Amino acid sequence: MSSGFFASHRETLEKALRAIEERGYWSCYSEMPSGKIYGETANDDGKAAVEARYNTYFDIDQPGTVGKVGSEASPFGTKLGITYPKIDPNVLLPAMVKASEAWGRASIDERAGVCMEILSRLNKRSFEIAYAVHQTTGQPFMMAFQAGGPHAQDRGLEAVAYAYAEMKRVPATASWVKPQGKNPPLSMVKTYHIVPRGVGLVIGCCTFPTWNGYPGFFASLITGNAVLSKPHGGAILPVALTVAIARDVLREAGFDPNVVCLAAEDVGGTLAPELALRPEVAIIDFTGSNANGTWLETHAHQARVYTEKAGVNCIVIDSAQDFKSAARNIAFSLCLYTGQMCTTPQNIFVPRDGINVEGGKLSFDDVAKAICDGVAKMVSDPARAVEVLGAIQNEGVAERVARARGTGEILLDSKKLEHPQYPGARVMTPLVVKLDAKKDAETYKQEWFGPVTFIIATDSTAESLKIATGLASERGAITFSVYSTDDKVLAAAEEAAIAGGVALSCNLLGGVFVNQSAAFSDYHATGANPAANSCLCDSDFVAGRFRVVQSRKHAA
Amino acid sequence: MSSGFFASHRETLEKALRAIEERGYWSCYSEMPSGKIYGETANDDGKAAVEARYNTYFDIDQPGTVGKVGSEASPFGTKLGITYPKIDPNVLLPAMVKASEAWGRASIDERAGVCMEILSRLNKRSFEIAYAVHQTTGQPFMMAFQAGGPHAQDRGLEAVAYAYAEMKRVPATASWVKPQGKNPPLSMVKTYHIVPRGVGLVIGCCTFPTWNGYPGFFASLITGNAVLSKPHGGAILPVALTVAIARDVLREAGFDPNVVCLAAEDVGGTLAPELALRPEVAIIDFTGSNANGTWLETHAHQARVYTEKAGVNCIVIDSAQDFKSAARNIAFSLCLYTGQMCTTPQNIFVPRDGINVEGGKLSFDDVAKAICDGVAKMVSDPARAVEVLGAIQNEGVAERVARARGTGEILLDSKKLEHPQYPGARVMTPLVVKLDAKKDAETYKQEWFGPVTFIIATDSTAESLKIATGLASERGAITFSVYSTDDKVLAAAEEAAIAGGVALSCNLLGGVFVNQSAAFSDYHATGANPAANSCLCDSDFVAGRFRVVQSRKHAA
Repeated sequence: MSSGFFASHRETLEKALRAIEERGYWSCYSEMPSGKIYGETANDDGKAAVEARYNTYFDIDQPGTVGKVGSEASPFGTKLGITYPKIDPNVLLPAMVKASEAWGRASIDERAGVCMEILSRLNKRSFEIAYAVHQTTGQPFMMAFQAGGPHAQDRGLEAVAYAYAEMKRVPATASWVKPQGKNPPLSMVKTYHIVPRGVGLVIGCCTFPTWNGYPGFFASLITGNAVLSKPHGGAILPVALTVAIARDVLREAGFDPNVVCLAAEDVGGTLAPELALRPEVAIIDFTGSNANGTWLETHAHQARVYTEKAGVNCIVIDSAQDFKSAARNIAFSLCLYTGQMCTTPQNIFVPRDGINVEGGKLSFDDVAKAICDGVAKMVSDPARAVEVLGAIQNEGVAERVARARGTGEILLDSKKLEHPQYPGARVMTPLVVKLDAKKDAETYKQEWFGPVTFIIATDSTAESLKIATGLASERGAITFSVYSTDDKVLAAAEEAAIAGGVALSCNLLGGVFVNQSAAFSDYHATGANPAANSCLCDSDFVAGRFRVVQSRKHAA
Repeated sequence: MSSGFFASHRETLEKALRAIEERGYWSCYSEMPSGKIYGETANDDGKAAVEARYNTYFDIDQPGTVGKVGSEASPFGTKLGITYPKIDPNVLLPAMVKASEAWGRASIDERAGVCMEILSRLNKRSFEIAYAVHQTTGQPFMMAFQAGGPHAQDRGLEAVAYAYAEMKRVPATASWVKPQGKNPPLSMVKTYHIVPRGVGLVIGCCTFPTWNGYPGFFASLITGNAVLSKPHGGAILPVALTVAIARDVLREAGFDPNVVCLAAEDVGGTLAPELALRPEVAIIDFTGSNANGTWLETHAHQARVYTEKAGVNCIVIDSAQDFKSAARNIAFSLCLYTGQMCTTPQNIFVPRDGINVEGGKLSFDDVAKAICDGVAKMVSDPARAVEVLGAIQNEGVAERVARARGTGEILLDSKKLEHPQYPGARVMTPLVVKLDAKKDAETYKQEWFGPVTFIIATDSTAESLKIATGLASERGAITFSVYSTDDKVLAAAEEAAIAGGVALSCNLLGGVFVNQSAAFSDYHATGANPAANSCLCDSDFVAGRFRVVQSRKHAA
């Protein structure tokens, strides 16, 4: 059965393996939420499936269940009322270890087949996942579909491909024949076993439960580890659906479904640090705050820890041919999911003397106004705005915006919007504040996760680049964007990006946005600054999830 | 100049790249200490070069030198009296960071060329390195030559090959063209930079300063990092020679030689923990005790830490066709460098009812006697014995042997031998003690690094395997050896090895010994038990030593 899965997905895997070598454009799963691709009733079916979960218990037949837990609150005000198994780690983890024995011994191809079948089923249920992501995270629906569905699946497949390639690089056997001059050679036969580490714990965030979770989930799974998914208390449903699908596939392939389990908890629960120190847990993938990520890095010594934390992303504006288009592009990046992305720019550095544009100059205020106007236009019609903004995931974000209003001159105030469909939704527009590079450093050096943008006056582009590099190195950054028509400035920006260990986007216009990161092509985070200790996906993200145990004997 | 280095070593690199794919027999550097290979005067020249260092200052023109340091004491009683630069880390480390800028920007091929030229020069000076290893570690000369010279160089080249392959897997550029239905595609050009992490600190041990040090040294170096070698205070000279050669090559290739520096100290110094927490240090390679290795793993949070610590290696004897040969093989493993290898077996488990051999049975005592006789024979002639035993590296080992004499019934006592060449040499023969699996667990569960062997009576081979697996999992192990004529037992041993995360050798006879690990074929340590958190060499050993920073812009 499970070798059947491999055969049916082999061609896809081969394409993925080629894609990670070339890192050009490739995507396995269609990002179009279209009935032609996903089935004419897929949208309605997905919506109905999620709604049918409301006010019910999401049963997962895993051992060690000691009650019900769950308190997700939709940012749109939808009453969810879903509960999930409450776990007893003392029962669940040993059961997972036991379940993973056969899984760890399965062939690489068998495990690849199972992983790819899980991804394929997740893809077929993209609408259901999308509604689950939409309702729990507050993402606008289109984004919930794309980032929560096919793009997350692509990232999962990317991790599968990297891990598959690394495991396959270890030969299964070798013949070692060492010449001994005139004597017969020494001749040994060697066998190399790929051995998993233990249980992989995947600690999710409340904004991108699948996109940020799938790489670690699939990287640990394909390398033979059991996987315990610990979603954020605010976004359990997309992860629970993923776990349920994975368990179905495992069962069908003849494996113990407890290879994949769910660790649900209420918002504010302490399961993450508790599970992270368990001896069974050998791998941890974490997405979340700096404080929690750093705690894991410095305390979970028994595990290999991969973190994606937070940072302070910057845009440096030096000059532009067509600043109108640039401002539009930037405005969209600020509005998208109301700035609740680890890739959203926060600090926009502009020389206080203004910038050169085609046919003249723009003052600092002109530049700031163009960006603010872009944002204002984008959110002017609530019905269209909510399809970009989505909703504010939690009250903490809203409180941060309130505090940010006091940091400087407000260029564009944040306001509440009424959601046409969801009267109780927590919808806000971005706040834009003017700051000074020298006087206000303490303000803009902090991360203000959410719809808070600072437009910061600097003495020069050189100063802008210097501050941006320093921020990336000291506070971390996942994205860095520069606008310039000057090749020297672009070269200096490239140097700054290398020094700050942050991915650079130059002169983005049109349909490519700095906060978007394409699987199979864009490396997401670098591991080279404090925003993350790893990268989605590279060899380092997968190579430590398995070990090689060899045996040798004299050749017959 | 530096591209010339690459061209002249390209073919060798290609062979090494093939070797790590196949992991059959391959060696780049000849292990024969022969004048035909290394030059007719190489032996004398090497000896003279080392002797010329005695009672002199080993000058390295690195910045931040604040005096002289060094108190190596030869286990053979030779008066060394060599001093080395004493470092001020506050001056040296910033200079290394500065030096590494151009190094980090050099092409992968340029860096590969420099690394391979260093290896090639180390090879040419194998006799000199051998005498340095011999006099500081106490290794017998043949071993000092092979393990300290060509075998260490092979391990260094293996690391170069793994890192080279991983870096080359990242494409330098990509063209990302995403279709947009009827609209023109989105078209981006992407550049991927390989970026080093910082300074790689290599903390060496006093028994294998080059063999254990070169993999981390070269893995960090080729990935663009600066390398600070911190040898054990007892074995500085081989590392100082290595550093000096590396600096010569760097200089010739047009790089700042401070990319590679030496951090020498007296025996018992505290440079290792001091340097390990420096912010400049981003990578640490460590070989040494469990206590120090675990301290690094749990404290040096700013660095990626690779450790090879210690463990309790076991032999399980179940049955044998020709136990005489087996006993001879085991005896050699116990005698080699007087058991001062991280791969030396300590615990030999034998069923108390004896074992089956061709044509009959051997009692427990017969088995123990055969091993003891093998050892006794091997050390009976002091002149030949010292060429296998070498000398005891430090007094701590000798004290441990004294303590071990009180742990049980002595089957073969350790005795002092007079070295024919070096009257003051610290030469001892192995101690063999009989223990009981149940009663004496607390004794044999400890690591007794040095010439201490326990032959332990168990109820059955099943019990032997169970104890050995448990020991590997709990205390760590690097080698595991089994003798059996029963395929079921061998299969069970393979399972035990996988469970314990330890490399298995089956029925070793003749010229292959459990404590020997061949570069390009045998993975040394696994990272899957407490003896080490990494492996020489696999992808995981190299993939985290560099990062990828990308930039993207619209295609023209």
